[in-house]
Amino acid sequence: MDKINGCGVGAPLGFTASGVYCGVKRAGYPTNTVTAAAILANENLQDEHKPDLAMIFCDVPCNVAAVFTQNLVQGAPVTVSRRHIKAVTASGKGVRAVIANSGNANTSNADGIEKAEMMCRYTAEALGIDEDEVICASTGVIGNVLPIQPIAEGIPYLKKNLSKDGTPAARAIMTTDTVVKQVNSIFEIGGKTVTMGAMSKGSGMIHPNMATMLAFVTTDAAISSEMLDKALRYAVKDSFNMLSVDGDTSTNDTLCIMASGLAGNDEITSFGENYDKFCDELRTICVKLARMMAKDGEGATKLVECAVTGAKSDEDARKAAKAVICSPLVKSMMFGCDANVGRVLCALGYSGAEISIPGVDIVFRSANGSEKVCENGFSVPFSEENAKKVLEADEIVIDVTMRDGEYTARAFGCDLTYDYVKINGDYRT
Amino acid sequence: MDKINGCGVGAPLGFTASGVYCGVKRAGYPTNTVTAAAILANENLQDEHKPDLAMIFCDVPCNVAAVFTQNLVQGAPVTVSRRHIKAVTASGKGVRAVIANSGNANTSNADGIEKAEMMCRYTAEALGIDEDEVICASTGVIGNVLPIQPIAEGIPYLKKNLSKDGTPAARAIMTTDTVVKQVNSIFEIGGKTVTMGAMSKGSGMIHPNMATMLAFVTTDAAISSEMLDKALRYAVKDSFNMLSVDGDTSTNDTLCIMASGLAGNDEITSFGENYDKFCDELRTICVKLARMMAKDGEGATKLVECAVTGAKSDEDARKAAKAVICSPLVKSMMFGCDANVGRVLCALGYSGAEISIPGVDIVFRSANGSEKVCENGFSVPFSEENAKKVLEADEIVIDVTMRDGEYTARAFGCDLTYDYVKINGDYRT
Repeated sequence: MDKINGCGVGAPLGFTASGVYCGVKRAGYPTNTVTAAAILANENLQDEHKPDLAMIFCDVPCNVAAVFTQNLVQGAPVTVSRRHIKAVTASGKGVRAVIANSGNANTSNADGIEKAEMMCRYTAEALGIDEDEVICASTGVIGNVLPIQPIAEGIPYLKKNLSKDGTPAARAIMTTDTVVKQVNSIFEIGGKTVTMGAMSKGSGMIHPNMATMLAFVTTDAAISSEMLDKALRYAVKDSFNMLSVDGDTSTNDTLCIMASGLAGNDEITSFGENYDKFCDELRTICVKLARMMAKDGEGATKLVECAVTGAKSDEDARKAAKAVICSPLVKSMMFGCDANVGRVLCALGYSGAEISIPGVDIVFRSANGSEKVCENGFSVPFSEENAKKVLEADEIVIDVTMRDGEYTARAFGCDLTYDYVKINGDYRT
Repeated sequence: MDKINGCGVGAPLGFTASGVYCGVKRAGYPTNTVTAAAILANENLQDEHKPDLAMIFCDVPCNVAAVFTQNLVQGAPVTVSRRHIKAVTASGKGVRAVIANSGNANTSNADGIEKAEMMCRYTAEALGIDEDEVICASTGVIGNVLPIQPIAEGIPYLKKNLSKDGTPAARAIMTTDTVVKQVNSIFEIGGKTVTMGAMSKGSGMIHPNMATMLAFVTTDAAISSEMLDKALRYAVKDSFNMLSVDGDTSTNDTLCIMASGLAGNDEITSFGENYDKFCDELRTICVKLARMMAKDGEGATKLVECAVTGAKSDEDARKAAKAVICSPLVKSMMFGCDANVGRVLCALGYSGAEISIPGVDIVFRSANGSEKVCENGFSVPFSEENAKKVLEADEIVIDVTMRDGEYTARAFGCDLTYDYVKINGDYRT
């Protein structure tokens, strides 16, 4: 199998990407007096600051699928991107580019749609493509007018800097994220090498309700839009829909996958071995991103997973796992490395899942070992010392074993810390 | 109208109450080697420590109604109290006493039921009543064996110290609460003076799902058990069911009302003016307690209310108000006095309520003034300085005006602070 050429969303055949600091956040609200040109021209500023504008470009039209936030309040970019995807899917034209900024969500603004359309138009003009071939996304503060000037001036720079390295783009969509989130995989479909790349951003306002973040996946697999959509919805179910940082579903959540088809495999147009292979790879990539996002949740010091087995139904398993990782009390005790089994039992009890509590066992597990704290629904004496050691690791699994059936689920979260409160106590400044 | 004789749950005719420090928490787990006698005999210890064992007693049998947690994991005292209420209601015997401890929830323990029954039996023996005439409740750590010795030795002291002052009992049910929560009201029904008293405890694991805390209400009104039950469910709807501190529904939630009938009014046995009067008073008392509990939420520095008007339905109004006060991002911004309207809009959007967002206005209001931050679903320019001043008060109202209908709701919460995390990072020690 070939080596991956490039990194993140830039790696699959046909794709390039770029990121730049143009000063979206700096431009402030409500005035828009700072031009981006000076910022863009200044190498020192580019080195000092996190980029805030990202572009993904594909040499050929891509089949596309996306899932968006289910929040009633939808960011203007969500509205515009939905419309573009519908248009290019209907016309069979395909998508060519993504433009995304951080620092401002372009949401709940009277001129939001207009600004989102301008982002797409400027991108289309720079790249010589149609406006509806561009997907747009914004993330950051809600309710501040989006300064369009920095974006307009930044787009030519993005075009100029397009490369196979997806890292600058992955950095440009970060908000309170502390680490870059991108992954790649390489696999074979029908004897052809297929590459997949992805990037995403957290790290607050993250809760399972369809897609819950910005995430972009690129691949050179040949797959019809219809099957791409099915694969994406399958992958979301076990990854981003099982992820919660704080229970708040954002207004701008967008998960978008573009497939260039340049890998040269026979196009996947129906269920079967090739579709299954593609689905598995996409699911794995999405789970990896979800885990990265949980671990880098706002203020988080550790990843907390809840692995449920033996549930009565798929829904019961998911509800139970999510309730545990969403509980502020479980999250707080994880921060304090306090093996308080009552918090976990309590969360299971109000999860809404049908659970026979007398059949529940609970084990805390990490790279440092494991400790059983509950058996048959009752707390059991355990070694406080060992439990503390287990919980001091930076990736904790809470194993919940039920005796109600055969279903399993895994949910991803993080601890609740002083820093979460600090970050969100004064997010806008 | 007469003056209230006594305080809190001790005030209504026929009732007395007491509280004592017997050392439930001190006794520790899993050993139970400390006898309470020495602690009880030591005046200094009584002065130094918060009491941890409470009793309410009534000279005559009371009609009773209660609502309990909806968590699948139910504390043993909940199971036993349910059984006793069912028994005395069926037999027409009535309830005579409450015994409640803090420091240990007696939940998820193999010997929980046995211990809860012992609490009732010892109380019955001391007071010369039947075991099923006693309601029991426990609050504190889940999964630690309840040390029964301190309770057994404390009960005779409780009996000896019974008085019209409900304060020691109200203090004895506190866990992480920082202020005593008790209220009284005096009103007339059919020309007779009726007294009502109540106490409750928060302050974490508080979320609207039926009753969500320990709360006890006493009254000397004459009212049938059936109408008492209806009145309690009516009062809960607008008070404790609209209260959230952290989204966690406890396993031991108990709200219980006892009516001695000694006020001498014609017994309320049906709907009508007298029932309405009683309901209003009970609702007012429950709302007062709910507000006190929200304001004293774990780590909280302020009460945050969301007042929704113009909603399409009662359910939509409640959902919207609750989503706003439950949002960790809204709660964090309240701590930081940051007027981030996007957080409120976002919470409304994912609340599940049917809302026409373009009809939404949002105003932040407090004793320090008010500031409109959203009009017709879009953020509007506002004075940051004034908004900050408004949010610096210790009681904040978020007014959400919709244009969808005539329904209103009010939900009660608090800010999310470093101290919430601190308190719950190591709750057990």
